[in-house]
Amino acid sequence: LDYQHVQVPFEITLWIMLASLAKIGFHLYNKLPSVVPESCLLIFVGLIMGGIIYGLNDRSPPVMDSDIFFLYLLPPIVLDAGYFMPSRPFFENIGTILLYAVVGTIWNVFGIGFSLYGICQVKAFRLQDVSLLHNLLFGSLIAAVDPVAVLAVFEEIHVNEKLHILVFGESLLNDAVTVVLYKLFRSFCEMPTIKSVDVFAGIGKFFVVGLGGVLVGLSFGFTAAFTTRFTKDIRVIEPLFVFLYSYLSYLTAEMFHLSGIVAIISCAMGMKRYVEANISLKSHTTVKYFMKMWSSVSDTLIFIFLGVSTIGENHEWNWPYICFTVIFCLIWRALGVLVLTFFVNRFHVNTITSKDQFIIAYGGLRGAICFSLVFLLPDFHRKKLFIAATTVVILFTVFIQGMTIRPLVDLLAVKRKRESAPTVGEQIHIRFLDHLLAGIEDISGHWGQYYWKDKLEYFNSKYLQKILLREYDQPKSSIVLLYEKLERKHAIELAQAGQLGHGPAHPSFLCSAFLCSSSDRTVITDQKLEDTLNPDVLDNMQEILARNLYRIRRTGPAYNRHTLPGDSEPTEQAKEILILRHKSL
Amino acid sequence: LDYQHVQVPFEITLWIMLASLAKIGFHLYNKLPSVVPESCLLIFVGLIMGGIIYGLNDRSPPVMDSDIFFLYLLPPIVLDAGYFMPSRPFFENIGTILLYAVVGTIWNVFGIGFSLYGICQVKAFRLQDVSLLHNLLFGSLIAAVDPVAVLAVFEEIHVNEKLHILVFGESLLNDAVTVVLYKLFRSFCEMPTIKSVDVFAGIGKFFVVGLGGVLVGLSFGFTAAFTTRFTKDIRVIEPLFVFLYSYLSYLTAEMFHLSGIVAIISCAMGMKRYVEANISLKSHTTVKYFMKMWSSVSDTLIFIFLGVSTIGENHEWNWPYICFTVIFCLIWRALGVLVLTFFVNRFHVNTITSKDQFIIAYGGLRGAICFSLVFLLPDFHRKKLFIAATTVVILFTVFIQGMTIRPLVDLLAVKRKRESAPTVGEQIHIRFLDHLLAGIEDISGHWGQYYWKDKLEYFNSKYLQKILLREYDQPKSSIVLLYEKLERKHAIELAQAGQLGHGPAHPSFLCSAFLCSSSDRTVITDQKLEDTLNPDVLDNMQEILARNLYRIRRTGPAYNRHTLPGDSEPTEQAKEILILRHKSL
Repeated sequence: LDYQHVQVPFEITLWIMLASLAKIGFHLYNKLPSVVPESCLLIFVGLIMGGIIYGLNDRSPPVMDSDIFFLYLLPPIVLDAGYFMPSRPFFENIGTILLYAVVGTIWNVFGIGFSLYGICQVKAFRLQDVSLLHNLLFGSLIAAVDPVAVLAVFEEIHVNEKLHILVFGESLLNDAVTVVLYKLFRSFCEMPTIKSVDVFAGIGKFFVVGLGGVLVGLSFGFTAAFTTRFTKDIRVIEPLFVFLYSYLSYLTAEMFHLSGIVAIISCAMGMKRYVEANISLKSHTTVKYFMKMWSSVSDTLIFIFLGVSTIGENHEWNWPYICFTVIFCLIWRALGVLVLTFFVNRFHVNTITSKDQFIIAYGGLRGAICFSLVFLLPDFHRKKLFIAATTVVILFTVFIQGMTIRPLVDLLAVKRKRESAPTVGEQIHIRFLDHLLAGIEDISGHWGQYYWKDKLEYFNSKYLQKILLREYDQPKSSIVLLYEKLERKHAIELAQAGQLGHGPAHPSFLCSAFLCSSSDRTVITDQKLEDTLNPDVLDNMQEILARNLYRIRRTGPAYNRHTLPGDSEPTEQAKEILILRHKSL
Repeated sequence: LDYQHVQVPFEITLWIMLASLAKIGFHLYNKLPSVVPESCLLIFVGLIMGGIIYGLNDRSPPVMDSDIFFLYLLPPIVLDAGYFMPSRPFFENIGTILLYAVVGTIWNVFGIGFSLYGICQVKAFRLQDVSLLHNLLFGSLIAAVDPVAVLAVFEEIHVNEKLHILVFGESLLNDAVTVVLYKLFRSFCEMPTIKSVDVFAGIGKFFVVGLGGVLVGLSFGFTAAFTTRFTKDIRVIEPLFVFLYSYLSYLTAEMFHLSGIVAIISCAMGMKRYVEANISLKSHTTVKYFMKMWSSVSDTLIFIFLGVSTIGENHEWNWPYICFTVIFCLIWRALGVLVLTFFVNRFHVNTITSKDQFIIAYGGLRGAICFSLVFLLPDFHRKKLFIAATTVVILFTVFIQGMTIRPLVDLLAVKRKRESAPTVGEQIHIRFLDHLLAGIEDISGHWGQYYWKDKLEYFNSKYLQKILLREYDQPKSSIVLLYEKLERKHAIELAQAGQLGHGPAHPSFLCSAFLCSSSDRTVITDQKLEDTLNPDVLDNMQEILARNLYRIRRTGPAYNRHTLPGDSEPTEQAKEILILRHKSL
């Protein structure tokens, strides 16, 4: 037996296996996950395992290594989050999200830090040796909402899209603030005296860390898109580039002390639409599947490790400090959300209701990021107290808040996510309104959201697409895509029923070169369509579309602010109409 | 800048990126890969990189770590090879393959070892300090044909299936022999005296190492299949199990000093058909894609590292020893193939031609396994000579033999792989003959290949499938599958041409529960079908099938040795015929 030799990969594989089997186990009993969030169950499994290890070895089980967490476990989850981020609600609410992420986090850090410092001044608590700086340092790591924990809980409770993106977007983007404040206070702790220059340098760093992350991410994202232009002959390594470039963007950002999370999210969002257009359908399935798989495994491992690491002798218990930490975390977050939302609502027509505010405040879960940061603290005599307080806050938010948030959402009747995909009519209206608003903003000289979106779209279609896409096509309107989907679905149904007429196909009539290339890409959303629409409505729609979509199939969107519609070829159109009429008679 | 922190993942990612970009680069210039095998180009890239590192640092570039090779780079390639192994030709030629792999390798080891010892006795060569045991040890590592190198070259030259499986199967299965002999001689080198017991123990080890590998592999494979029975609600981690279990089988086998390669191959071959039936189509695409991607990256990295590691000061040059090593490798392999084939041909009707024999002998490429093994040797004063000789043999076989084998195959007009998939008629005939031969063997009391295959199939359908498959269905005959494929293809074509009639579908007539489940799985081979058959033939076939396949769609194969055909329900059949007639009128 030669265990030494294979130890590292063997143990990693076993941990992943354990995580996957635990996941299967939970899903075998359907009732359990509907009451308790998976994250709680996983932490519970971790606690049991930690207890077993502790009992058998009689020493603390291994603590989750912060390096492993930040370098290997966190990136897949953030990549998945960035890649599947719904970009429309994200950019529509970017202002609010940034306000929560930046101002809100700073508010929380200083609020929690100063008020804990106040607690430390009470002589009875025996905490007078904890300095203000240490409290602020603790505040900076405990204040940040954790994307992994938020995602795990909010994916199960299905609140409306805007609420979801507000909490989730905040948890992602506050990374830049957390990184800066945490490093700032940590270096202040080690400095003998603090000059005011340092404080200003710290404020300057916000922008460097955040914007630097965005820049690093976007440049890697565009490079990835550009690379996939050349993979036509070697489809099999296409998915690799998506993972490699986004991981590189994360590592590069971390290397330069920028925000890795922000970098990987911008990389994923930047490359997505171009990569998807360049790579084959099967590569795309692989990318999506593997991303989901990887993030789901990482997520599972993180919660299990969190449980395992909780057991042990790292903790120093001090009732007042720990209780007040939990209370201050709740109070300052609630206050912050109230105050910030008050300002946000003054500038928006579509306001955030008080129910939504409650869920935003209540959904501020803490997780593995805090946990890893507290272990990264330099050794000082109260580190174990901080570890204990952090553990309690995490367990409190994940267990108590995570388990009660679903009943609360039910009780408050918070607006849920709509179950159905937007109808064709809605899609057309949304697009029409976008154009209209962009036009209004253009005329009135107001450089708002729609104006910039329109400019970006113009820049994209004029330059980016030509550089980054292998085959540059006019984008097709969603109504044409829908028609193609319906036709294909209907055909497959007929084939399965054995009802197809066996007349030979007319290859002359195929506009397949045009249809096939894009149709491949649209199949992937078929499932959603099937689930959401009534079959009668579908049949009806298909018939109307079949009779009326002659030329539109070839021209793409009929209205485009930046291009003139192409010259139509009347003879071909006439021929097509003739053939269709002939068929329908 | 904090490079230390991210160094490990950053450098790994960069190496993989380099490998992938090199692959893209070669494929951009289409002419290059058609002349020079990719493996040569990659070694060349590695040589250049090694030269650059050597020039810049003025010391030897890092040598490929044997642990990295055996634990991380080799398993994906072997897994890919085992998973996509064509099982029919493999099992048809298993006897011949085993003969080449076991007897042939032993022959080569002792032939090369003893004759090199003879060379060492020549005083002029100054090699008298190399003992017989050291020569045999060297023989044991240089004799084994390398699966990675063979696969890289044979995948490009497209020889016929039998020839391919003979060389490739040998290269995979000789791992057990190599492991045993290498470890045996290495321990002999360190022992003061060798008893005859040790020699017999060594011979006994063959069976333990080989059969133990098979057992470990199969048990992990069946566990994997069993696990995927329960993943219905959590599709997203299905692909993970395929990778985790096969990797665990490899590591477990290595841990117990069994043959990891044999284990992972049996695991992959054992789980394939059950896992494929259990997991969803998208999971399956992901598994296939990721396996190919991973093995292709590993393969690329291995050849690049091989090139990099060649540069440096690890070599001790001795013309006679190195030249004679190359010559003996060629001669003993050629002799071995001739002798063994002579015996094989006496027992087979379908003989191995002399052209085939030449290609088998000439295709005995050496690669990274030898290279890693030679670096794993215990330190002794002639290790650098062995390293130099191994490097030369690898470069000689990969460059000279690898580059000339394609012209030689052309020149000798070696029978190529048939480009088209077998026709339906052929498939039916093959299956019919299998049954017939199994019956003949059964009657004549001869327990041959077909008898055992039939027994295995019986055991499989009676026990294994019921335990390992989630939904246990009667297997469908390939002709029904073909019909379904054609129908679906036709329907999609019609939909793309916009020619579908818009009558509502008859859901009452759908036997979809039956058809859908399997149809998903067959889509994946559609591409092949399209490429190989004439459209007219297809239409014709489809029409004949449509008129005649009434009930067969529900009963599965009409003839089965172990089950009686189920009772047909005449009313339903009549109804179906009626409906079809009605449609055709």
